Amino acid sequence: MASKTIKLNNGIEIPLVGFGCWKVEKSICAEQIYEAIKVGYRLFDGAMDYGNEKQIGEGIAKAIEDGLVKREELVIVSKLWNSYHKPENVKKAIRRVLDDLKLDYLDIYYIHFPIAQKFVPFEEKYPPGFYCGPNGWEFEDVPLAVTWRAMEELVEEGLVKSIGISNFSGALIQDLLRGCKIKPQLLQIEHHPYLTQEKLIKYVQAQDIAVVAYSSFGPQSFVELNHAKAKDTVSLLKHDLINNIASAHNVTPAQVLLRWATQRDILVIPKSNQKERLVQNLTVNDFNLSEEEIKQISSLNQDLRFNDPWTWDEIPTFV
Amino acid sequence: MASKTIKLNNGIEIPLVGFGCWKVEKSICAEQIYEAIKVGYRLFDGAMDYGNEKQIGEGIAKAIEDGLVKREELVIVSKLWNSYHKPENVKKAIRRVLDDLKLDYLDIYYIHFPIAQKFVPFEEKYPPGFYCGPNGWEFEDVPLAVTWRAMEELVEEGLVKSIGISNFSGALIQDLLRGCKIKPQLLQIEHHPYLTQEKLIKYVQAQDIAVVAYSSFGPQSFVELNHAKAKDTVSLLKHDLINNIASAHNVTPAQVLLRWATQRDILVIPKSNQKERLVQNLTVNDFNLSEEEIKQISSLNQDLRFNDPWTWDEIPTFV
Repeated sequence: MASKTIKLNNGIEIPLVGFGCWKVEKSICAEQIYEAIKVGYRLFDGAMDYGNEKQIGEGIAKAIEDGLVKREELVIVSKLWNSYHKPENVKKAIRRVLDDLKLDYLDIYYIHFPIAQKFVPFEEKYPPGFYCGPNGWEFEDVPLAVTWRAMEELVEEGLVKSIGISNFSGALIQDLLRGCKIKPQLLQIEHHPYLTQEKLIKYVQAQDIAVVAYSSFGPQSFVELNHAKAKDTVSLLKHDLINNIASAHNVTPAQVLLRWATQRDILVIPKSNQKERLVQNLTVNDFNLSEEEIKQISSLNQDLRFNDPWTWDEIPTFV
Repeated sequence: MASKTIKLNNGIEIPLVGFGCWKVEKSICAEQIYEAIKVGYRLFDGAMDYGNEKQIGEGIAKAIEDGLVKREELVIVSKLWNSYHKPENVKKAIRRVLDDLKLDYLDIYYIHFPIAQKFVPFEEKYPPGFYCGPNGWEFEDVPLAVTWRAMEELVEEGLVKSIGISNFSGALIQDLLRGCKIKPQLLQIEHHPYLTQEKLIKYVQAQDIAVVAYSSFGPQSFVELNHAKAKDTVSLLKHDLINNIASAHNVTPAQVLLRWATQRDILVIPKSNQKERLVQNLTVNDFNLSEEEIKQISSLNQDLRFNDPWTWDEIPTFV
């Protein structure tokens, strides 16, 4: 079983549905990755910040060892953390990522946030998370264009195949495009029916940059982080509109939410601890929503952003 | 009569209330500027794009000639248009501005928009406005950091005293600050009770960058441009809440709207064709709103942006 693919602006094809590694517990991570590969997942969306790259690496290694998959069939993703935006730290960080994953190259590497925080040595804390000093946030004066140049060099050196940006606004992307040597292949953003970001997506897709949605189920991803706004919001998985559409197609609400994205060429990276759901999420492209249904779902938009740096301070567990 | 002042991060003091030159008709512009100087205005907020800099220059020259004011008492403002973002065009453009204004230096010079459009030679069209090709928008690949460096050079060369940015988002400002040599002294943005931009203002003021509000009366500025959204919105000058607060203080609704900004150290640049209103706008700092009144006014926020580049195509007269 395989997911449909999309071709990036550098000609590389990747699956429309991947497995999201955010919040996958270390203790079960290697096994989860192995299981996901077994049921057909090929894209694994990880990040330094998720703290589980060694375990992801173990799962991948075992799957390759057992002959389930070849390295070149996999699309392995990581993200440069905020504390490593300086060019010399971009180099250091990718080495650490590749070591942890036990890989020679990454398929996709993102700048995780357009936020440059103070460098934290690996020995001190890895991954360092959001706070690096006793007084909270400390920043570093390195512009995004400089960090992007270092990302481009990783491609030139063969350490990374495709590079992307995550959590960038339209204005930042426009400015990056005005000066880059290699255009980003992907933009990863929070995207669900409560936060549709239609202008941003229209602009970015028009630039031939693929859009990847995270938190496709909306508040769901944030409830487990004790996020107040998420807890106060109607779950999309229990929303009447989503449920009705799911019934009409004889699929699950989760499948409707994922298809709402993929049908507009937006990649999704759900995670699940349940094998059955893993399979359901992967087969999300086997039905089509009507134009009207897509519109109805999009009309739930409230510009409701859960992963908002302005509120990070209020969420002690959000690291 | 003089307006209260605010000190910029380079130590220069400028008035909290200035005269906005946007949409001041060429035919009456020189006289309006002269009259405004006469009643006490010292800051004049112009831009290449407004197409009236020659007339502003005439008004200033006459006022100085007649002994109403000295050059050094004036704060003359212009803005670099989108078509001149390349460093060599930044130089060309300031020469043109200074020639038109008949001045040796500008007090404040902004990047008008974070949008780099294709260069249009002066001979072809000046100011060029938004469209430079038969196919509509054409852009130029010059990053904002590069344009900003050219702006900094104008300061180093003594052609400009303070430099600022206009219509920049928080993320763009943060990125600019990570790489600039001279920190912007000012940010000019659309700001009124329907678009309060509280996070942006909080962030920018915390960086010791002064905030200047344009379109302080909200839809009012855009109705005359035949702006559909503006025409569909309740005028702030006729809004019950604003009227009640105005009555309570025995001032005009316009004065309430301006004071709501200046009381939070946000500069305002109203324009008026009427002498009486000119004076009223200037004396806006002679009363204080209560904290509660400021809150009430701010609660009118709807994130309603009239000057939105996404909609420019729909407004044929908006040039």
